[in-house]
Amino acid sequence: MSTGTFCRLYYRIPFSETDAMKIVHHSNHAKYLERGRIEFLRLTGLDYVSIMKRGFHYPLVEIRTVFKKPLVFDEVILIETAIVEVSRARLDFAYKIYSVPELAMPSLSKEAFEGGKPSVLGETFHCCVNDEGRPVAADAEIVEQLKTLWGKA
Amino acid sequence: MSTGTFCRLYYRIPFSETDAMKIVHHSNHAKYLERGRIEFLRLTGLDYVSIMKRGFHYPLVEIRTVFKKPLVFDEVILIETAIVEVSRARLDFAYKIYSVPELAMPSLSKEAFEGGKPSVLGETFHCCVNDEGRPVAADAEIVEQLKTLWGKA
Amino acid sequence: MSTGTFCRLYYRIPFSETDAMKIVHHSNHAKYLERGRIEFLRLTGLDYVSIMKRGFHYPLVEIRTVFKKPLVFDEVILIETAIVEVSRARLDFAYKIYSVPELAMPSLSKEAFEGGKPSVLGETFHCCVNDEGRPVAADAEIVEQLKTLWGKA
Amino acid sequence: MSTGTFCRLYYRIPFSETDAMKIVHHSNHAKYLERGRIEFLRLTGLDYVSIMKRGFHYPLVEIRTVFKKPLVFDEVILIETAIVEVSRARLDFAYKIYSVPELAMPSLSKEAFEGGKPSVLGETFHCCVNDEGRPVAADAEIVEQLKTLWGKA
Repeated sequence: MSTGTFCRLYYRIPFSETDAMKIVHHSNHAKYLERGRIEFLRLTGLDYVSIMKRGFHYPLVEIRTVFKKPLVFDEVILIETAIVEVSRARLDFAYKIYSVPELAMPSLSKEAFEGGKPSVLGETFHCCVNDEGRPVAADAEIVEQLKTLWGKA
Repeated sequence: MSTGTFCRLYYRIPFSETDAMKIVHHSNHAKYLERGRIEFLRLTGLDYVSIMKRGFHYPLVEIRTVFKKPLVFDEVILIETAIVEVSRARLDFAYKIYSVPELAMPSLSKEAFEGGKPSVLGETFHCCVNDEGRPVAADAEIVEQLKTLWGKA
Repeated sequence: MSTGTFCRLYYRIPFSETDAMKIVHHSNHAKYLERGRIEFLRLTGLDYVSIMKRGFHYPLVEIRTVFKKPLVFDEVILIETAIVEVSRARLDFAYKIYSVPELAMPSLSKEAFEGGKPSVLGETFHCCVNDEGRPVAADAEIVEQLKTLWGKA
Repeated sequence: MSTGTFCRLYYRIPFSETDAMKIVHHSNHAKYLERGRIEFLRLTGLDYVSIMKRGFHYPLVEIRTVFKKPLVFDEVILIETAIVEVSRARLDFAYKIYSVPELAMPSLSKEAFEGGKPSVLGETFHCCVNDEGRPVAADAEIVEQLKTLWGKA
């Protein structure tokens, strides 16, 4: 994962996202990555609503998810999001999802997880399109802000 | 249910719509009603894509669902949709969902279900809005076609 | 809504729950009510996982939702949940969902919303079943704890 | 894609699976692959319900999806599923999703799509677990039936 800024989001698993195997259905993990990504972008001071208002969108061109350990109802997960590539043409993220022992939450520190193993690994690859869905070069200012977060500006 | 035209749609329950109680999660039933409604509208010769292209949308103002019998993975359901009210200001539907014994499907007749009991009952109430989401009177032609289907034109 | 205890849960709308009308798709509101209900139950000291471990489940027998104002991407909503009926045979909840002006959040007080209008109203009606899905009388202790919260014990 | 048997499933995109970009939200594609996979397994004469009744489950260990062209409301897609690997320890599938011009449907032949380009490519990787979620060797009979379909028995 990137050495730059990363974003940590906590999320409690709702019953609606479980399936008949009594674990989270795998179609929901893409939504967890999206929640992490949207919170990451908020850190830029350019939240996704603002990016869309400028006429830019970042649809997915590819997603990969590795499931190491099932997630279950009512547990709290930690979604860690980082940028792995940013240019005017593309934007790529990497994610780690951890199961969080609930009582540990108030005192969670970055160190607390260093020995921990992620339950889910994810990567998403995005292009930049305009309001009509056509590929365009992203706004240079947005790219600069993302690069700063990434630690490669 | 209306005495007019009604629409029958078969649908096989996917694993992704089950939950940890091993039944279909109740948030999915609204999607089943929507599938039935969209197919019903297609009967008008005015499918929902065409209605939207004319600048009209029918968002929900209310939904009610009664769960009589749980739906389960891989079963085939029959979604019956009928209009219960149509005017330039509103459009209301009623629905019955049946569990269908699979082998019976090829020879299903209306009569076959008359003794059957629905697993789910639903009602949806819609207003008509324009592209900006503001309430408007629906196109008179659309209303006439819906009334014809309803048997009250 | 009940005069007893009620539960307030904040939730940020993800992109995945929007639809092509650029509002939250109506199938998601049932999930919001469920999130509110699960948090309400946690207040009892008998969270839903514990209730299930005791062999009890509260599936829906009916749901009603009234949509007053569309919910949109990235807004923060407040889900208010209260009990309206509890016995050994059933458990009913009422809900109000408010759109929350984001900056107001830190200082939100009950009073702040008294003049506010809910965007969504909901009611859910539940029966009590055992692990096999058969209707049973709920554990008396669970019922007492719920009645206490409800203010009718 | 495999030279063995493959399964073709048609599916009409519902409104509930679109998002505010007016395309299918990317979390739904995993559900489309699952629909294709479940239909493929039905070809074995060992549908997934039967496999589960024997005490075996095939959860995902990894999923990859490449989005070439957005899917939109009400279009009909063709989901093609094939096996790429099967052993007692694992089961891997590859998928192609095509947008289907609706009028062409009745006369669709394999050849008709050979010049067509898939809108979505997918791969899923599964392990075999028992009812407790622990990795186990799959039933030899199930594996043989899958290998026969795969054309590598």
